[in-house]
Amino acid sequence: MTGFCHSDMTTLDGPGRTMKRSGTGLIPLIALDGPTPLYRQLYGWFQHAIVEGRLRPGQRVPSTRALARELKISRIPVLTAYQQLHAEGYLESFTGAGTCVAASIPEEALKTASRAARRPPRKIAARLSSGVDAVLALPPDPKQPGAAFRVSLPALDHFPNDIWSSLLTRHARHPAPRHLAYGDPMGDIGFRETIADYLSMARAVRCDASQIMVVAGSQHGLQIAARALLNKDDAVWMEEPGYPGAHRAFAIAGARAVPVPVDADGLDVEAGLARAPHARAAYVTPSHQYPMGMTLSAARRMQLLSWAARHDGWIIEDDYDSEYRYAGHPIAAVQGLSAEDRVIYAGTFSKVLFPALRVGYLVIPKSLIAGFSAARDAIDLFPATLFQLALADFVREGHFARHVRRMRMLYMERRALLISALGEIGQVEIVSAEAGMHLVALLPRGADDRAISERAAAAGLSVQPLSLCCLEKPKRPGLILGYGGTDARRITAGMRRLSALL
Amino acid sequence: MTGFCHSDMTTLDGPGRTMKRSGTGLIPLIALDGPTPLYRQLYGWFQHAIVEGRLRPGQRVPSTRALARELKISRIPVLTAYQQLHAEGYLESFTGAGTCVAASIPEEALKTASRAARRPPRKIAARLSSGVDAVLALPPDPKQPGAAFRVSLPALDHFPNDIWSSLLTRHARHPAPRHLAYGDPMGDIGFRETIADYLSMARAVRCDASQIMVVAGSQHGLQIAARALLNKDDAVWMEEPGYPGAHRAFAIAGARAVPVPVDADGLDVEAGLARAPHARAAYVTPSHQYPMGMTLSAARRMQLLSWAARHDGWIIEDDYDSEYRYAGHPIAAVQGLSAEDRVIYAGTFSKVLFPALRVGYLVIPKSLIAGFSAARDAIDLFPATLFQLALADFVREGHFARHVRRMRMLYMERRALLISALGEIGQVEIVSAEAGMHLVALLPRGADDRAISERAAAAGLSVQPLSLCCLEKPKRPGLILGYGGTDARRITAGMRRLSALL
Repeated sequence: MTGFCHSDMTTLDGPGRTMKRSGTGLIPLIALDGPTPLYRQLYGWFQHAIVEGRLRPGQRVPSTRALARELKISRIPVLTAYQQLHAEGYLESFTGAGTCVAASIPEEALKTASRAARRPPRKIAARLSSGVDAVLALPPDPKQPGAAFRVSLPALDHFPNDIWSSLLTRHARHPAPRHLAYGDPMGDIGFRETIADYLSMARAVRCDASQIMVVAGSQHGLQIAARALLNKDDAVWMEEPGYPGAHRAFAIAGARAVPVPVDADGLDVEAGLARAPHARAAYVTPSHQYPMGMTLSAARRMQLLSWAARHDGWIIEDDYDSEYRYAGHPIAAVQGLSAEDRVIYAGTFSKVLFPALRVGYLVIPKSLIAGFSAARDAIDLFPATLFQLALADFVREGHFARHVRRMRMLYMERRALLISALGEIGQVEIVSAEAGMHLVALLPRGADDRAISERAAAAGLSVQPLSLCCLEKPKRPGLILGYGGTDARRITAGMRRLSALL
Repeated sequence: MTGFCHSDMTTLDGPGRTMKRSGTGLIPLIALDGPTPLYRQLYGWFQHAIVEGRLRPGQRVPSTRALARELKISRIPVLTAYQQLHAEGYLESFTGAGTCVAASIPEEALKTASRAARRPPRKIAARLSSGVDAVLALPPDPKQPGAAFRVSLPALDHFPNDIWSSLLTRHARHPAPRHLAYGDPMGDIGFRETIADYLSMARAVRCDASQIMVVAGSQHGLQIAARALLNKDDAVWMEEPGYPGAHRAFAIAGARAVPVPVDADGLDVEAGLARAPHARAAYVTPSHQYPMGMTLSAARRMQLLSWAARHDGWIIEDDYDSEYRYAGHPIAAVQGLSAEDRVIYAGTFSKVLFPALRVGYLVIPKSLIAGFSAARDAIDLFPATLFQLALADFVREGHFARHVRRMRMLYMERRALLISALGEIGQVEIVSAEAGMHLVALLPRGADDRAISERAAAAGLSVQPLSLCCLEKPKRPGLILGYGGTDARRITAGMRRLSALL
């Protein structure tokens, strides 16, 4: 660095902008317009000209007076821009030598940057993590927000918005300072107590509030569990067919999914033992297998717990829609059977209330609380507070139980209607537990469920191909039909359209 | 399986519960009390007795009639419990042979389960993932919610709750169905447009709405970026000293942190090149280095961009508190300089509004949008909708800009007061950019900042030790003092207490 500017006075051309000679140096021909303040436009021009190599280290720039005169603007924005460029180190000034581009900017760095700027924007080899690659390798899940038979969608038009919004307002208007500040990675303790009470009573889960972690839906819960428990390439038993969301959750976490077939009794534990006895975890949906709907039998539950105890494995129990059972009583959670606390239990409020709420929970074995809490802190600190406060009231004041009861009646009707409409179509074999918000219609062997699903999508129907749930070659084609968020009229009309397609 | 029950009539003892002989089989002595329905208590007793080996496969259980008589209760709950136990496969019935524990439950599984139940609950070797181990190996971050000088905490008592809660109510009361349903993994498009406009104008970020991903605060943004871009053991440049939250985010993601010293010009890029030229990413806080406060100089920005272009690296720019700058104009983002779209830019609303909001954003290079979107879908599906709608209005209607302006004045005063109070203490050297919500007070060499921080915590002060920000041996002890959420009275009183401690 010489302490003086070069006397480089040649004309430089940049894409779409040129400079011309002036008494004191090069004047940028800047199109000054739009709502952006003048000083910012000037600042931006200089900054890009320097980065892209149109102005070089040590090169003199016009005085503020000359530039303002040339551009026919007040000197103030020019001064402001220069001040900023000085502050950030793009320009420097020397007594008697005027203002120059900082000589300290390394030419080498500029050359690379300038080359990059000049060449047509090439497609960067977007090297993503192997986790993302694994997710992208899974069959795509075509999402059709408004379509009939969308799986997992509840009856949104029956949600008591007036009650919910008044609970939100109650807590939002005069919040305690601690409810605006940083919170516990596990969630709000009052809400966690409410969840623990609910789970003990309704699901025979053995827990206290210290074990509850509030998460943003069950997908988030699975992710936190995977992060906390699994290392790259750890084997995890996955029900086959199984829940595509879980396939994605474990794929992004770098785990190795081991498909384990399900039969009428649920997960075939012996098949799991044959394929990967030393798996670190087993992902299961014992109350209502996704998508097939069967309950994991008592014998299988025992076998699963025995495997976990013998092989130091974890059971990740996803109880995603246990609230809706239309015959008999709710099936108790496996979690409540585990004497050794081998079960991480995941549930969600997003299906009973509405998906855009994003609130779920994990029940964590006591020996793992510290580890899960540290993982959550590292992942996203803690859950937003307001929904927790409002939801705790929603449960405690009985709105939750009332809504579940009303929806159970409604979904029962919708389910009966769908089954009867499917019966009229014929050709399909209905697999349906008396629970949840969806059923599976098995198609004749050899049918292409993905092609049918695509044709249905074109006709405004969201019927998920069963093969989407398979990690291995599917045994039988089928369609998954959600009925929770599809009313009677749309069920009847939709089945007519589907019948025409089959 | 014989199809008949064993005629095992001996008395069994379980912990705290016994059975006695009866005419038709063993009668459980169950303490029936509490709010749990009778049928559930009976069901639970049988289930646990079977799992824990007190009732064995094939063993006969009393008839419903006999059990009801013995327990002096109505037969209905007994029938309900037995029905449930049948449905779940714990019991089976044979004509003429009564009801027995299902013979299909494998004895081997039961033995393990029963052994596990009988031995005193041993501490499970809670093998957690290596990511959690890495997080737990970092210096602990003692969180003191209410204490003075808490870093990152804004002035919660100045937040316009009335405006915010009325915006929430506006959107919660009569939501469009799509605002309750599943949403886009990237976030609500209207909100993303608002963010893109804001960032283009205020931060010289070059982006459109397609590049914005709404996340749950900047910690969550860092986690998604790490997940999407990095594989296990990939090297990442970390500013030294640097942001402990980022240390945790990259640790849980399995990345290898490479500490790169910062000097008066910010991250020493040459040092980074010497230590790990082929790092996959560099984590930087260019506008206001955390915790030291300097701005990354223009020369260093060029060097960093040049490194990224040459080595196919990513720059993760955390612009965590760019809204507050008390002299000059806001420093432009590095993102706006990157011709090759090498920068993932992270920002948050949680510091300007309130931390319990949990809303932030990423700006993603166009070449990476598909990969990030797939990663987000796998991690937690999509962000909750309501806060996005309300926050979009909060920004568009000018409340955000107004609040930032008011807080800028307030924090400027608090900062001045803190600096003057620290000046009176002496012994400390103040390092403070004219920006943000915290400053660093360097302590005399040899001082133990952790010990001082602990003593301060006991006195109700949350002064973070600078050494907490170091991955290597700290060069100089110091204290990080947040002034955003600490009012004048508490600043004065707190400094008096701190002075007594030093």
